[in-house]
Amino acid sequence: MAWLTIDRSLQIPLIRQIYKQLRTKILNGELSAGYRLPSTRSLAEDLEVSRNVVLEAYDQLLAEGYLEGQQGAGTFVAEGAYLKKKDKIATFIKDDSTSKKNNNNIIDFRSGIPALDLFPRKQWGQLAKSVSIETDHSLFGYDSPEGRIELRSVLSDYLLRTRGVECHPDQLVITTGATQALTLIAKLLISLNDKVIIEDPITHEIQTIFQSYGASLLPIRVDKNGMDTSQFPHGIKTAFIFVTPSHQFPMGGTLPIQRRIQLIEYARKMDSYIVEDDYDSEFRYEGPPVSSLQGLEPERTIYIGTFSKILSPALRLGYLILPPTLIKRCRELKHFSDLHTPSLEQLTLSLFIREGFLEKHIFRMKKVYRKRRDFLKEQLYNEFGDKVKIHGDSTGLHLIAEFDGIHFTDILLSKIHDDGIKVYPVESHTINKGLYSNHIILGFGNLDEVKIANGVAKFKKSLLTK
Amino acid sequence: MAWLTIDRSLQIPLIRQIYKQLRTKILNGELSAGYRLPSTRSLAEDLEVSRNVVLEAYDQLLAEGYLEGQQGAGTFVAEGAYLKKKDKIATFIKDDSTSKKNNNNIIDFRSGIPALDLFPRKQWGQLAKSVSIETDHSLFGYDSPEGRIELRSVLSDYLLRTRGVECHPDQLVITTGATQALTLIAKLLISLNDKVIIEDPITHEIQTIFQSYGASLLPIRVDKNGMDTSQFPHGIKTAFIFVTPSHQFPMGGTLPIQRRIQLIEYARKMDSYIVEDDYDSEFRYEGPPVSSLQGLEPERTIYIGTFSKILSPALRLGYLILPPTLIKRCRELKHFSDLHTPSLEQLTLSLFIREGFLEKHIFRMKKVYRKRRDFLKEQLYNEFGDKVKIHGDSTGLHLIAEFDGIHFTDILLSKIHDDGIKVYPVESHTINKGLYSNHIILGFGNLDEVKIANGVAKFKKSLLTK
Repeated sequence: MAWLTIDRSLQIPLIRQIYKQLRTKILNGELSAGYRLPSTRSLAEDLEVSRNVVLEAYDQLLAEGYLEGQQGAGTFVAEGAYLKKKDKIATFIKDDSTSKKNNNNIIDFRSGIPALDLFPRKQWGQLAKSVSIETDHSLFGYDSPEGRIELRSVLSDYLLRTRGVECHPDQLVITTGATQALTLIAKLLISLNDKVIIEDPITHEIQTIFQSYGASLLPIRVDKNGMDTSQFPHGIKTAFIFVTPSHQFPMGGTLPIQRRIQLIEYARKMDSYIVEDDYDSEFRYEGPPVSSLQGLEPERTIYIGTFSKILSPALRLGYLILPPTLIKRCRELKHFSDLHTPSLEQLTLSLFIREGFLEKHIFRMKKVYRKRRDFLKEQLYNEFGDKVKIHGDSTGLHLIAEFDGIHFTDILLSKIHDDGIKVYPVESHTINKGLYSNHIILGFGNLDEVKIANGVAKFKKSLLTK
Repeated sequence: MAWLTIDRSLQIPLIRQIYKQLRTKILNGELSAGYRLPSTRSLAEDLEVSRNVVLEAYDQLLAEGYLEGQQGAGTFVAEGAYLKKKDKIATFIKDDSTSKKNNNNIIDFRSGIPALDLFPRKQWGQLAKSVSIETDHSLFGYDSPEGRIELRSVLSDYLLRTRGVECHPDQLVITTGATQALTLIAKLLISLNDKVIIEDPITHEIQTIFQSYGASLLPIRVDKNGMDTSQFPHGIKTAFIFVTPSHQFPMGGTLPIQRRIQLIEYARKMDSYIVEDDYDSEFRYEGPPVSSLQGLEPERTIYIGTFSKILSPALRLGYLILPPTLIKRCRELKHFSDLHTPSLEQLTLSLFIREGFLEKHIFRMKKVYRKRRDFLKEQLYNEFGDKVKIHGDSTGLHLIAEFDGIHFTDILLSKIHDDGIKVYPVESHTINKGLYSNHIILGFGNLDEVKIANGVAKFKKSLLTK
């Protein structure tokens, strides 16, 4: 279906109009060599001309060598009929994110990336196919903002079984990843100049999202046990308290029950919501999982979960658990954001969980990640001895390494990068600056032992030659 | 010790039963700080469970900080683990959208729904599977906000070939459906109290989205040729002009070239952007294609496209074409909305287009929809004769029916609904009210001839018995 126009008010015969437009498109490369032209019948229908008109235009182009064709096999644009244009169609600005080359030799300790080569492709692919082929055809229509009931039901069972999170499927809203969950919370709870209590340090992007909706952040210092709840301010009304209690990001602490209770009591006193971001607590290497804040105070806790770490960030599947009072408004906001999260993927995931594949995958990956974590620690101790301290490694896909006497300035980080290693400074996630300049975040989820060993060795070498 | 119970008929593991009861008793103060728990051996005997079950339950409570203990000294309830009780969480409030029953006997003339039973399930399912199984494993990682280059490239070729839209792949941002494209445009272009010129009537949801970002709407009356460009206001600065030129929604007109030029000249004079929403122009039954506004004025037109009508709304795949000056900011906004649109679906779609399946599917569906449209018109004329006028049926998946002397009030629409038919009043999409009270929107994309015939007959019966 070539895009052609017919103008009957012109003096130019229709055959000529079609011929000229096709010729131009072939000359300027819009229709490139090998492109199969629509059949004369379908083009004639499309342009509302007689089929003979199209036949004659095609014949002329065939005769002139722009087209080639065989009886029964169709008509194609011939080779060598493209004339390079002098001027570009649009002046185009090259953008960093497209033009940047991925240097495959770089060893990247970026946090939060699962082992991409161990994604359960086959199971997922099979399920995706069967969802597309076998489900009732209503699946392909518009859906409801909160997400498919199949996924919400199986997820509510799963969360109770594995995380002690108690929720009715109606309290769940499936989101296009945890990032969308954060923006929905911001829209739901933040009015201009509202205060939000937040851990410091905390993911830089989360700060940006809340601030972009007008929040002013009240940072609370984090220690090895997470947010220091004894530091909560008095007499200040806050929209909500944002916390990563299972595995503080980036510092890695787990909030003990005493602090959880202090936090809840504070939220009650101040009549504030709690936002609990639980992004990777499935990978806990020491001790059993810790109960969620949501399970302790379901009426004022909003819980954010994601499948980015336990499966793949490419799926963009996350969820919110809401207190009943916020459900209706959140569904509306989701509706006006993107109507709903793609249905076929939701259904694929619900089958993946129902078949037990998710729990098996997590079980398997936990062993892989524990091994990688242990190996990374071993390498760090081997290379740096007592010059390195490791924190926050009980859970998840990253750890914090603190280096005696080394300050990770932009200049140093850039040198390390030039030497083929990417590490991430804690300071890029701090609100009050300067306290963590000798701490870096080392993700190990997507690095095998060879890469970890090379990475740590190269990293040391880079530091020594600074 | 009768204070713990074990129920072997429950699905809940024994460890979890013991853990939960102890935790509850600690949280509610029944077991207070310093209380010494029975030894694991004696509790196990008492409950007639294996000692390991009790050990694991204790371990979990120790890890979470509810208990503390030392080798040989016993296990005690920890300080600060008591949470004052609040009133019970409200038993769950049923929500309309979940509890409402789908009445399958209702014949629903909702617009914009493609034929769901003709979605190319098999091709899509095969491609989805092969994407999951065969693609490089980097596919499963985080991706860039603008979307996969495979999809943007093939889409840029497709748009040039079929719609005369000229764009570099870098000008495309893949969105989670057209709704997200609209919210990105709102974030990109609207500041508080900005004026936006918009067609009247126009999709109610679009009005809501722009208003929720602070826009004040300047409605321009629509006639059978779309937006009446002679009515543009003078001397008022506007953020952008929103227009559905290929197929005005809902009235169905196609903006002629003369008005397109007037619109562009106005936008140039006022230094305003144009937002062109092209949601279903692939299904054009009459008249030659008219050049897109984007093709005529790429420097100030933002073009919105979607796969919801030509494939399925469940995919949530849409896109924006941006002038180079807006690309960077739009990618940032997309990043902070949901990072990016799901990667596997993007890649599946790019293969679907590359293999030629999309164009074949559109070609096939155009015939189906044309037949359905013709049949619907025939039924309307048969039942209502010269009491009905039909508008805006040259393109797309719906038409407008105007009924002589019938006013579609809420009461009448509700009666029609009770009689098993859903039709949609144009008035719900108007800004200036009262001009279209005898017009309704009839979607036919997802209705076969039996349903159309029954629907129109029942609709007439319902009107006669009012």
